[in-house]
Amino acid sequence: MEQTKAPFFELVEKDMRQVEARMRTSPDEPNPHIESALNHLLASGGKRIRPTITLLTGSMLGADRQRLVTLAAAIELLHTATLVHDDLIDGSLLRRGNPTLNAQWSPAATVLTGDYVFARAAHLAAETGSLSLMRIFARTLMIMVSGEINQLFYAKPNDLHQDYFHRIYAKTASLFEVASQGAAMIAGESDGIIEQLRAFGYEIGIAFQIVDDTLDFIGQESEVGKPVASDLRNGLITLPAINFLQGDPHNATLNAVIAGRRVDEADLEELIEAIRQSDAIERSLDQARQFVASGTQRIRNFPDSPPREALIQLAEYVINRSF
Amino acid sequence: MEQTKAPFFELVEKDMRQVEARMRTSPDEPNPHIESALNHLLASGGKRIRPTITLLTGSMLGADRQRLVTLAAAIELLHTATLVHDDLIDGSLLRRGNPTLNAQWSPAATVLTGDYVFARAAHLAAETGSLSLMRIFARTLMIMVSGEINQLFYAKPNDLHQDYFHRIYAKTASLFEVASQGAAMIAGESDGIIEQLRAFGYEIGIAFQIVDDTLDFIGQESEVGKPVASDLRNGLITLPAINFLQGDPHNATLNAVIAGRRVDEADLEELIEAIRQSDAIERSLDQARQFVASGTQRIRNFPDSPPREALIQLAEYVINRSF
Repeated sequence: MEQTKAPFFELVEKDMRQVEARMRTSPDEPNPHIESALNHLLASGGKRIRPTITLLTGSMLGADRQRLVTLAAAIELLHTATLVHDDLIDGSLLRRGNPTLNAQWSPAATVLTGDYVFARAAHLAAETGSLSLMRIFARTLMIMVSGEINQLFYAKPNDLHQDYFHRIYAKTASLFEVASQGAAMIAGESDGIIEQLRAFGYEIGIAFQIVDDTLDFIGQESEVGKPVASDLRNGLITLPAINFLQGDPHNATLNAVIAGRRVDEADLEELIEAIRQSDAIERSLDQARQFVASGTQRIRNFPDSPPREALIQLAEYVINRSF
Repeated sequence: MEQTKAPFFELVEKDMRQVEARMRTSPDEPNPHIESALNHLLASGGKRIRPTITLLTGSMLGADRQRLVTLAAAIELLHTATLVHDDLIDGSLLRRGNPTLNAQWSPAATVLTGDYVFARAAHLAAETGSLSLMRIFARTLMIMVSGEINQLFYAKPNDLHQDYFHRIYAKTASLFEVASQGAAMIAGESDGIIEQLRAFGYEIGIAFQIVDDTLDFIGQESEVGKPVASDLRNGLITLPAINFLQGDPHNATLNAVIAGRRVDEADLEELIEAIRQSDAIERSLDQARQFVASGTQRIRNFPDSPPREALIQLAEYVINRSF
């Protein structure tokens, strides 16, 4: 597995090894089928950006290391569990170039493994020793799943912009938010500081998803691992398309996609190319940059420290990454 | 929905109405799709035996009513969530005479609704305000799911008896155990009393499942809602078959089923009839009665009270019910 080795990842490398071990440690007699599935899922990698946020935020605030490692493991496992069920639902056979669990296992085994990973994540969250954190953790899972259910019952939204931000909050920012907020809770910070760190995670998460959605339009298929504009091809309206619509509100193809109608393949390719060439891309990235700027502003009043610097680098990496 | 109205249910009727309301109350802005699915699932009924155990145990020990209602709702929702995924995996179209969720919804929506119900159960468990309870709750989900995964990867067990008791612990007794143990934790009891109540729930749960497995052999298809001996037909070895094997250790058909081989339909019918006519049935029920006797013994040293009497009645109902 190739991991991005940005400098901010290096600062948490030692703790992250503990997080990796924690995610793999069963509190009970290990079940060989589950351990094998879990090892497969965790070996497929991923940037581990969420647990990195937890470790850096907690480290900046002087939180207890062991509890931070536990929370970071809980958050990455919750993320992993949602991916297991997502891939099953989407019928995805590859994730990050590796076969998904559902590509190898039956749907039954995939559903149950996802459930098991949820349960282990909840168990780890309880191990952090904070009930309010546990409540937020369970609530985040409700928000994430509720967002996905809404996507299944697609209805043309009244307000595209608002609908988009609700959607990426449920999908991504809600878990980024807990990653930083939870670290502040473990550090025993005041409600004001906890809220400040929650907002930091929220804004970095929103920026992360906007960049993801923009890379879907401009990334190389070889890097993104999906055809260009796969979201739009699946009828999913993301920020670049919304920005494009502002400049061309009567675009027939785009309005048809928004209305949930099927469109002609050639028209769709033309629309994708038009969006790629338009300033909608740059405007989307600008919006992501504004979220990152606002997010980093929220941690600038903390004393200068390596973890604080690393968090700022991480926030900048979120908008500068190419995949 | 027809509910069994045994006297011990009457004692908790008022609190159970609160449990029903609690299960249906979203902590966030309600999602209409989820609320409709949840109402469908909860309206299908069920005996509510697990939350009844929680309410009666807590009431016997003088636990806080609101926290008990919360725990009871968490436990019944956890049970409901596992049924949603089980029915999907088994492809079951009816449960208690009502269409299952997967009979009406897509697999994707069914997986996600199950996830959502898990999340809401975990959120309620966190609302009980006890971290140790929360840990046990998450661990129970791990045990239940782990047991189901094992069933998917069936391997001929070394020890049929031990394998059976592991299996019914994971499937049933683990959640019965939390139902009574959790109530004792909420009541702030000592470790000794908590353990005593855990053992009570465990034994009642084991008895409940043994009776279920025996009714599978002797119940009327119209009452059980499944063909007679559906477990054995699905290759699942339960206590009546294990007891029968003790009296007829070289039975070729039964040994073939245990080894996971396909058997001739006529041979299978003959085996089922032989088990039904044998003393294996009565011996299974005797074993269930012993668990109930041991369970009730554990609560006889508490002062006489209506909830204690109701718990003893409930334990006896577990072995005397006909479906």
